[in-house]
Amino acid sequence: MSSIKYSVAAMERLCRDVFEKFGFTKEEAAQITDVLLLADLYGVKSHGVQRLIRYHKSIENGCVRLDAKPEVVFETPVSAVIDGHSGMGQLTSAFAMKKAMEKARSVGMAFVTVRNSNHYGIAGYYTKMACDAGLIGLCVTNSESIMVHTGARKAILGSNPIAFAMPAEPCPFWFDAATTVVPRGKLEVYRKENRALGDGWAVDEEGAPCNDAERVLGCIDKKKGGGILPVGGKSESSGSHKGYGFSMMCELLCAITSGGATSNHHVRAKGQGSGTCHAFIVIDPAIFGDAQALKDHLSTFLQELRDAGRADENVPIYTHGEKEMLSFAERMKNGIDVDISTVAEMIDTCNYLGLDYRSYLGDVDVSQAKPSFYNNAYKQ
Amino acid sequence: MSSIKYSVAAMERLCRDVFEKFGFTKEEAAQITDVLLLADLYGVKSHGVQRLIRYHKSIENGCVRLDAKPEVVFETPVSAVIDGHSGMGQLTSAFAMKKAMEKARSVGMAFVTVRNSNHYGIAGYYTKMACDAGLIGLCVTNSESIMVHTGARKAILGSNPIAFAMPAEPCPFWFDAATTVVPRGKLEVYRKENRALGDGWAVDEEGAPCNDAERVLGCIDKKKGGGILPVGGKSESSGSHKGYGFSMMCELLCAITSGGATSNHHVRAKGQGSGTCHAFIVIDPAIFGDAQALKDHLSTFLQELRDAGRADENVPIYTHGEKEMLSFAERMKNGIDVDISTVAEMIDTCNYLGLDYRSYLGDVDVSQAKPSFYNNAYKQ
Repeated sequence: MSSIKYSVAAMERLCRDVFEKFGFTKEEAAQITDVLLLADLYGVKSHGVQRLIRYHKSIENGCVRLDAKPEVVFETPVSAVIDGHSGMGQLTSAFAMKKAMEKARSVGMAFVTVRNSNHYGIAGYYTKMACDAGLIGLCVTNSESIMVHTGARKAILGSNPIAFAMPAEPCPFWFDAATTVVPRGKLEVYRKENRALGDGWAVDEEGAPCNDAERVLGCIDKKKGGGILPVGGKSESSGSHKGYGFSMMCELLCAITSGGATSNHHVRAKGQGSGTCHAFIVIDPAIFGDAQALKDHLSTFLQELRDAGRADENVPIYTHGEKEMLSFAERMKNGIDVDISTVAEMIDTCNYLGLDYRSYLGDVDVSQAKPSFYNNAYKQ
Repeated sequence: MSSIKYSVAAMERLCRDVFEKFGFTKEEAAQITDVLLLADLYGVKSHGVQRLIRYHKSIENGCVRLDAKPEVVFETPVSAVIDGHSGMGQLTSAFAMKKAMEKARSVGMAFVTVRNSNHYGIAGYYTKMACDAGLIGLCVTNSESIMVHTGARKAILGSNPIAFAMPAEPCPFWFDAATTVVPRGKLEVYRKENRALGDGWAVDEEGAPCNDAERVLGCIDKKKGGGILPVGGKSESSGSHKGYGFSMMCELLCAITSGGATSNHHVRAKGQGSGTCHAFIVIDPAIFGDAQALKDHLSTFLQELRDAGRADENVPIYTHGEKEMLSFAERMKNGIDVDISTVAEMIDTCNYLGLDYRSYLGDVDVSQAKPSFYNNAYKQ
């Protein structure tokens, strides 16, 4: 599928203007944009500007409440439970992570859990906040039901990513991965690009292997059964129960601790928040002694991993976060590839808001774009 | 391979007498035995009494120091760093988990990290300690290098299990899984049973797929390259980098926080401790409000997972810990299957210590046993 390269500045201006026009403050729009663009800059295309249409529809349908403010409903020196009141996930989450960081700086470690939020972008944005401040960050979220757990034919669990970051040189350890084999966003990208899904990624409503992104996404959205498999695949001999277990840890850490909705009780209906839950755990490395010594120790270890001898001489060994830093540098310089279907969705969003899309996107031919899935994604 | 069924009481008496004879106190021997037997009772054969010979050799070769006492070298209200001084992993770890539980009860959550320990049995023993007390427990360890990370041909990371437990009814959530596709112990069992390894489990020193347990274990022990793959297998498209990332989280949480040895710096040599590191994180559910409400919420959710519709009508859907509780009940009643090679190793251990093996094992024919790998496992 064809794509157009845009400068980071152009995408930033578009996203900020879109979210301001929706009614967010200048600061709020900047925060949401920052999360979206980090995904594209890090090469996590699935969670970048291609999701703009999803946020547009969520706001249009009243699933995201524009005026919601996160409320701390329970608190101890090491913890907080926050009700997001169906606000924008990125805003509630930045608030929650800041609170976890403050508490961790004060008492050494902290656990802030959130209920009644919405999709928050890449989990790793929030662990990066901690890591940039010299702290260890762990962040998880649940999502709509998408994972078919070991032995089942119906999706109950979400894609449930785990993100973990810890300072190191020349590049931090920055890990962010769905506990499914692939995240939903990757299926969305494959659908837009008309590509067949990888083997062992998904099953249809009968529980049979399926490589058709459109069909699997349809199963998920209509809750017909079927969905994406856990990392480890379909059988216990390849570790299916492990991916299922990691996904469970996410649900327990965010939905059970917050008293919120587990993934199977999330909602996608007009006027209702999704019920998404998140958790933010922050640890000050100084609780183990000398924070600089920990950083040096980790930096040495990461280099040993890179130097472990390549399986293929032409393919470097990466530590987590390295590819993202390389991608960041390249895209800041050369811009972001946006596929034509996403450009068409951006035009829809601009038109909906009365913004002149040409001032951001130029004169573009989107006749090859696929119809946007999100036009029909919300139940009445 | 043939096996013999022994009562739990017989195995308990054997293990306690063995460890007392080695020089541990009655209480210490009981603690070590408790960890070993829980593995067999939970059906985790790889980490049960089949490892007795490994502990025997570790003690005989001075890798485990009998008189070592764990020392708290750094401490805050939420944390402790413990030096195990190469003592028995089970003793250092029970001490560390108790400390984490005490701190969590006092301040809400706690993180105790351990360096210079040795193999500690199943990670889930320690999270069970927390869970039995109504707390949320997370425990990780590193191990000798065994995992070939994404893109590499040499093992740097350990099998690095993650265990997580949280109270629920009628059975807790109890998850304990190596971040490799399978743990080393499973390869040991397959070698004893002359079975071919599953596809996608391991690679040889050339990085080529390998189904021969003897060869892969040889590669690992001689550090020739090769080893076990991360959960997610060999390529990024099946999620190899995810298993690699979960394994990294273990190293960071235990070896980096404790200032201890990462898996690639572990030692197996006479007179030296292995350098194994562990981490114990405990959270009091009361820091989120009503602990009973959390437990009820989780219990409901676990039931929803069991009721999700079976992929195969004849195969139940399990939540993590359920199989283990069923196994526990069955084995407490009917006893534990011990394969004949393990029985032969137990006879060696009894003979070494001057214990009459017949009083525990009866008159047995072990002529079909394979020679014990551990007789030559330690470098001079």
